[in-house]
Amino acid sequence: MASIFSKIIAGEIPSYKIAENDLYFSFLDINPVKAGHTLVVPKSEVDYIFDLEDQMLKGLFTFSKKVALAIEKVIPCKRIGIAVLGLEVPHAHVHLVPLDHIGMIDFGTKVKLSADEMKDISSKIATAFEA
Amino acid sequence: MASIFSKIIAGEIPSYKIAENDLYFSFLDINPVKAGHTLVVPKSEVDYIFDLEDQMLKGLFTFSKKVALAIEKVIPCKRIGIAVLGLEVPHAHVHLVPLDHIGMIDFGTKVKLSADEMKDISSKIATAFEA
Repeated sequence: MASIFSKIIAGEIPSYKIAENDLYFSFLDINPVKAGHTLVVPKSEVDYIFDLEDQMLKGLFTFSKKVALAIEKVIPCKRIGIAVLGLEVPHAHVHLVPLDHIGMIDFGTKVKLSADEMKDISSKIATAFEA
Repeated sequence: MASIFSKIIAGEIPSYKIAENDLYFSFLDINPVKAGHTLVVPKSEVDYIFDLEDQMLKGLFTFSKKVALAIEKVIPCKRIGIAVLGLEVPHAHVHLVPLDHIGMIDFGTKVKLSADEMKDISSKIATAFEA
């Protein structure tokens, strides 16, 4: 079944469109943190952003940069923040949020880890890293 | 003055290092939302992520993808979320956060905008967009 974003791209569901090219589509988030809060999605329906092939991933962020520069021209803000969560709509999407202060994109509760735990975790991830 | 991240990259401040290449450096966030919360930074000290040239921006996200895949191998989670805020340390950095549920990266208070306001905003940003 087509994702809600695929339906938006196809024009079956209306959106406040910002820009598109052959690979990407951008439109206002309907539930914005601030005026100008925008989504950028690949037209191909891939759920998880890190499942995108490198070429598609690179293009997603250079396209997002162009959208961010456009938002900045219109919306007074300190800068454009980026968030990719991906636990809601199963179609990878980049949130571009005009930020005035840190709390507009926030992290949940922090965890306390000992130096030994940090060392152990970093060593395991470093070992799993494939350059 | 060198940013705290430049000092970490130079080894002047210790870190729990994950990976590096000639252009990028990755290490554990010292104040994690969850075990495995990692930062990825360009070695060159650029404050705002959208001031990075396209080539550097693309590389930052393909490097982040490799780090994310490594985190996923080690830390049980649904997926790796991305956040770039940039209102604290003046050195662009990507947060990679192992997500179990949506609230681990959260948005602040939402705003209510009318259809006319949304239309006006999208039209202005669309006009400012340079392909």
